[in-house]
Amino acid sequence: MDRLSYEEASARYVRLVEAELAAIRRREAGRIHPRLLEAMFYSIEGGGKRIRPCLTLAVCEMLGGSLQNALPIACGLEMIHTYSLIHDDLPCMDDDDMRRGRPSNHKVFGEAEAVLAGDGLLSLAFEVMLRAAAESKDPRILAAAYEAAQRAGAAGMVSGQSADMELEGAVNPTGDMLRYVHRHKTADMLEAAVVAGALTAGADAGVLEKLRRYSAEMGLLFQITDDLLDATGDQELMGKTLGKDAKQGKLTYVTLLGIDGAKREAEAAERRAEEAISGLENADYLLQTVRRMLTRSR
Amino acid sequence: MDRLSYEEASARYVRLVEAELAAIRRREAGRIHPRLLEAMFYSIEGGGKRIRPCLTLAVCEMLGGSLQNALPIACGLEMIHTYSLIHDDLPCMDDDDMRRGRPSNHKVFGEAEAVLAGDGLLSLAFEVMLRAAAESKDPRILAAAYEAAQRAGAAGMVSGQSADMELEGAVNPTGDMLRYVHRHKTADMLEAAVVAGALTAGADAGVLEKLRRYSAEMGLLFQITDDLLDATGDQELMGKTLGKDAKQGKLTYVTLLGIDGAKREAEAAERRAEEAISGLENADYLLQTVRRMLTRSR
Repeated sequence: MDRLSYEEASARYVRLVEAELAAIRRREAGRIHPRLLEAMFYSIEGGGKRIRPCLTLAVCEMLGGSLQNALPIACGLEMIHTYSLIHDDLPCMDDDDMRRGRPSNHKVFGEAEAVLAGDGLLSLAFEVMLRAAAESKDPRILAAAYEAAQRAGAAGMVSGQSADMELEGAVNPTGDMLRYVHRHKTADMLEAAVVAGALTAGADAGVLEKLRRYSAEMGLLFQITDDLLDATGDQELMGKTLGKDAKQGKLTYVTLLGIDGAKREAEAAERRAEEAISGLENADYLLQTVRRMLTRSR
Repeated sequence: MDRLSYEEASARYVRLVEAELAAIRRREAGRIHPRLLEAMFYSIEGGGKRIRPCLTLAVCEMLGGSLQNALPIACGLEMIHTYSLIHDDLPCMDDDDMRRGRPSNHKVFGEAEAVLAGDGLLSLAFEVMLRAAAESKDPRILAAAYEAAQRAGAAGMVSGQSADMELEGAVNPTGDMLRYVHRHKTADMLEAAVVAGALTAGADAGVLEKLRRYSAEMGLLFQITDDLLDATGDQELMGKTLGKDAKQGKLTYVTLLGIDGAKREAEAAERRAEEAISGLENADYLLQTVRRMLTRSR
């Protein structure tokens, strides 16, 4: 892999994930009710950077694992991420009409089918991961699926969503509440992607611990830069000045720390992420991932 | 088990399932966001007859398996069934204000939290089943979890829900559409319960095949009697006359076959269910289950 640039490596992972997702759609075409299948894959095929599945494949490969073992887990995580976006966009949640430049799922298929499309993707994610675990009889795949269930699940991402709604309605939101939300809503899924990738390669406890710390810092970094992008009008991040005000009334890292304070905290999180994996070999893709997050645009 | 009556055996299974669900709630109390946990278990603790988990435990025991192996699968299926009811009751779906004599989930917690409570229960179901499979290293539990994922999933129960919405909007609904809906919306979850129970006991292919045929007939029987209960005003079934009209405009087995035709079809399905498992020993609980379904009330 060291002959490929970061962009080439990412493009290769994206191709692998999207080919596998397309294969899953073809296999399910005779099984899932046609309209439901269409609604589910409308959002799967809506693009996005596939950050989570790329991380799963990259970590597996970094540790000498088989990409074939990691692919069902990578696709499962992408389906789980996608279901969460569909449900998050619903009128009773964030009520977003657009997602990635296209009408959101419920604007195209209606609210009821969008609820079911999310339910279908969440269920299919576990079906795909369980099939891989059962057919391979490889306990590493089972361990990765269990990791995904824990981080994406009720005590992970879903708790983050629930706490986020509480935060929005809170009279005196605190920094602790904000950190809880993003620990679970954002960082848990990135941790799932990184750690599940490591588990498919049979990583030992020491490596897993380093990767968990790396993921937590990456989650914080990702969220702060997200808030900065909101505050600076989706321009590139570092070196730019405030483009528009942060969303009125919502607590973010920018309203909590100010623009400059948030930038310093993002840089500190990036350094801590690098330090967490400083002992790992072949970690160039992971290092590049957090460095580029610091200067990302949308 | 043969010393217990059907009622005593059912009560014992319900106690085991409800004790395990309570243990899951206690374990999750420090992990899941408090309001989300409350919303999830409001519906879990809302009662119901626990038909699916009782079937899972009964089949496992009938085949000489360990109830400890079957309990996480039984609880997973009850959580999946409960999530489907929460989402089904949402205003954008069936818009039901009441469920089992209490306000439905979204009437108590709001729509957004109800969506998340369903997502949380579906995720926790797989987390509980995957934990049992990973910690036991027992391939029979993994096989049962995979069976649950297939029947409850996108090609199973969720396809049934999607087709049901299509059926309600159809200008010329057909008997084939009705059968597709109930095959997936109702029978698939009953098949999951019965077959997953058998898998936890390591049942062979011949036994699984008999149990699949039994479950399909039970699903048909369950749905016809449901339609008859709607049509006869929730009175006891056989021997009663029409209490109130079937729901206007909705195709059911009663509108399709008439009251007497539906009763005959229910009796025929019950006979076929018995025949499907005629070669199995210790099948008294399964035989009683379908016999009582024929005369059930709500």
